[in-house]
Amino acid sequence: MATKVKSKDKHIQSLASLVEGSYSILYQKEDLLAYDCDGFTLHKHLPKAVVFPKNTQEVANLVKYCAENQLPFLARGAGTGLSGGAIPLNGEVIISLVKMKSLLSVDLENRRAVVQPGFVNLKLTNSISDKGYYYAPDPSSQSCCTIGGNVAENAGGAHCLKYGVTTNHILGLEVVMPNGEIVEIGKSGIADAPGYDLLGLLTGSEGTLGIVTKITVRILKNPESKQTVLAYFDSVADGSQAVSDIISAGIVPAALEMMDKIAIEGVEAAAFPVGHPKDIEAVLLIEVDGISAGIDEQINHILEVCKSRNVREVRAAKDEQERAAWWANRKTGFGAMGAISPDYLVQDGVIPRSKLPEVLIKINKISEEAGLRIANIFHAGDGNLHPLVLFDARKPGETERALVAGSACLQACADVGGTITGEHGVGIEKREEMRFVFSDQEIIAQTDIREVFNPNNLLNAGKLFPTPGRCVEIKMEMKAAQTS
Amino acid sequence: MATKVKSKDKHIQSLASLVEGSYSILYQKEDLLAYDCDGFTLHKHLPKAVVFPKNTQEVANLVKYCAENQLPFLARGAGTGLSGGAIPLNGEVIISLVKMKSLLSVDLENRRAVVQPGFVNLKLTNSISDKGYYYAPDPSSQSCCTIGGNVAENAGGAHCLKYGVTTNHILGLEVVMPNGEIVEIGKSGIADAPGYDLLGLLTGSEGTLGIVTKITVRILKNPESKQTVLAYFDSVADGSQAVSDIISAGIVPAALEMMDKIAIEGVEAAAFPVGHPKDIEAVLLIEVDGISAGIDEQINHILEVCKSRNVREVRAAKDEQERAAWWANRKTGFGAMGAISPDYLVQDGVIPRSKLPEVLIKINKISEEAGLRIANIFHAGDGNLHPLVLFDARKPGETERALVAGSACLQACADVGGTITGEHGVGIEKREEMRFVFSDQEIIAQTDIREVFNPNNLLNAGKLFPTPGRCVEIKMEMKAAQTS
Repeated sequence: MATKVKSKDKHIQSLASLVEGSYSILYQKEDLLAYDCDGFTLHKHLPKAVVFPKNTQEVANLVKYCAENQLPFLARGAGTGLSGGAIPLNGEVIISLVKMKSLLSVDLENRRAVVQPGFVNLKLTNSISDKGYYYAPDPSSQSCCTIGGNVAENAGGAHCLKYGVTTNHILGLEVVMPNGEIVEIGKSGIADAPGYDLLGLLTGSEGTLGIVTKITVRILKNPESKQTVLAYFDSVADGSQAVSDIISAGIVPAALEMMDKIAIEGVEAAAFPVGHPKDIEAVLLIEVDGISAGIDEQINHILEVCKSRNVREVRAAKDEQERAAWWANRKTGFGAMGAISPDYLVQDGVIPRSKLPEVLIKINKISEEAGLRIANIFHAGDGNLHPLVLFDARKPGETERALVAGSACLQACADVGGTITGEHGVGIEKREEMRFVFSDQEIIAQTDIREVFNPNNLLNAGKLFPTPGRCVEIKMEMKAAQTS
Repeated sequence: MATKVKSKDKHIQSLASLVEGSYSILYQKEDLLAYDCDGFTLHKHLPKAVVFPKNTQEVANLVKYCAENQLPFLARGAGTGLSGGAIPLNGEVIISLVKMKSLLSVDLENRRAVVQPGFVNLKLTNSISDKGYYYAPDPSSQSCCTIGGNVAENAGGAHCLKYGVTTNHILGLEVVMPNGEIVEIGKSGIADAPGYDLLGLLTGSEGTLGIVTKITVRILKNPESKQTVLAYFDSVADGSQAVSDIISAGIVPAALEMMDKIAIEGVEAAAFPVGHPKDIEAVLLIEVDGISAGIDEQINHILEVCKSRNVREVRAAKDEQERAAWWANRKTGFGAMGAISPDYLVQDGVIPRSKLPEVLIKINKISEEAGLRIANIFHAGDGNLHPLVLFDARKPGETERALVAGSACLQACADVGGTITGEHGVGIEKREEMRFVFSDQEIIAQTDIREVFNPNNLLNAGKLFPTPGRCVEIKMEMKAAQTS
């Protein structure tokens, strides 16, 4: 039984008829306001409607309807994305996947689980932890973000240094294609499937190639033991050098996180302070896990490395409670900036580890020029840097200056051979910055692939790639040359 | 100075003029015979010519010439491929990459190396081992296969259980596209690059999307210590159960290999026998590596697991010499079959680990029905099974029966939710078997992607996908439906 709608709009009526059950469609302006943006709040657009399908067939029917009626549409999970991937730029019909939130099956013997896209990331680990298993990708938003959204963004997390990002844990997908067809990709869940790697292509495609309706993920056995070291440095260069030394020693920590002075000020002002000294330039959190017998040796090695790099203070957590407190403090991360600044802009660049001191000096200069403070949180092991530009949107011009500073930080990353996003995606936010790392031809190659899957560009248009302009011209020149 | 050619064929003359230096082109029939197949010898076709460029620009010029003159072409590395990916089905111009065999740079700090495609896999490890580093993917042919070929096939190897297949170690590619354009993909070498995952798409595309001319790979620090356990079982089921128990215990061995009775007969008759008992049903080789302190505990755990599964004999290598001997014995693998059979066909299926006993029973039945012995070598940890069908091509009908049996083994893998290739690729050999795992629509989605990169299908045509027929019909129906 579909929800009754009062609207006279025939599309709204038709869409409502395609989703069973109550609370399955929103279409009134006051309801739609909650869907005008996601975790990236600098752009806001109202959707045409929000529909809440409960199964794959309903998603397929909705997509088919949109395709046949030329209605732009997009999928949305928990709306925690940081780059605007779920913002309805073109007044899209939003297909919300929050009602498709079941854990469909767990196969411990072959280490797999099958989930619906709206299943919350952390719930998977919570569902299997009593049997000694967990799901590795752990974005900081894991208590509310969905695995479907993680697939769209190829989400990372603090522990991705050792265990890899989302794409390394996805074994199969059921996808509703932009024409409404349902396809299965990577059925067998193996490392090197025959044919082209469509699983890799779909993962991280930011909702522009299809809507994922079922996900087979790899699950891992809990490590027998883990331990965390905390180290305070009086210089960022010393902290960075310690990071390099640890990796060079052949240790692969499960996580290797760095925060600078302003970030420390933030996390200490937020919900879970642990007493980090205020005058310290850098704090490192280094976690190792694995077989118990190997842990102590690795911890001792890490302590020695830090001491050889002028550490002010370094020690392992004295118990599980302290270890958990350090991580809770770190995980307040971005949100914590709210405690020391009215507004902040999260950036997400990647650099070769060895370039950290050089890039931090550059970011310092950008901060001075903008007249805005910039905090830095760094997944140091894999070179993923999050500059957090602090500003006050109420002050005229500050938002614009923050945006310019954020973009300049990404340019600084690209300049040293890095790139413009590590885990948050491009979305709306970094469309133009794609030009820092891709030529026009390279962007065209990618939009050509989009066209194979999404020929009418009704699905999540205007995301991930720069506005056409020059690319369209070049493409037309190329086509003209080919046919002449 | 280009090689002088005696041929009157204007294409041969033009191609010769595009590659500098001596011995840069072959075009006479007696020379071309060596290039009529690769490691898959059941199909043979003569190329039009074989050219040996020395740099990217020469490759680009050759490709541009072929594209402009509608000459089919393909790239070839060492020719060790097992699925026929480098066979010139359409009388292609073969672009051999064996002269592009340099190690261009090594960046230990950021753990990367840049190589040309003709650089031999094992040479990379040999070049950096004195500094304590290695390159992880280790196909059994690693002493002669090239890294370019490894990228094309997304090659695996015994140690891919812990460290992943080639795609997990490729950070960037320089590629000559089928129109002769040179593009760089994945410049920054990070896990989650912005845009679509073209690096993943190119890796394993079996030379159908472009020709790789430069490769940035990840290199790893040597593990501090490694140890190998050898276990003999009187039943394959017990051996398989031991594999599952080891993985369930949370141990991730660096390698976990199984051979059955016939495979043991082969390796014991070949170059490096180690005295495996002839009456044993299964031998397991289990290697663990990592920090020294953790190794003994893991080894003890593995010994206990094997004992609890009715092992006949189990022990760790007594020294490095014995460990190396066990591996040399195992690595003779496929070739060893030559010692017990005039001919053999290597198959390459993947199954969920837990299905091994069931699939081996099925393969036994296939063997009986075909009247041919089938040996099994199994990368047990990741479910990659190599049935080796033994036959004698001189006996009428045996080759055909071997091919049917090989295909039936792949069907058996697909039937339990597995797939038709783990690491050898589809090539010519398994084109029709693609239908065991992909629907027509799914194949069309892939050939549509090929068309984006390789619109005229001049590059390595006839590989990787089944012959069109039904797919073309469906595609035309779909197009007709869309435009009507």
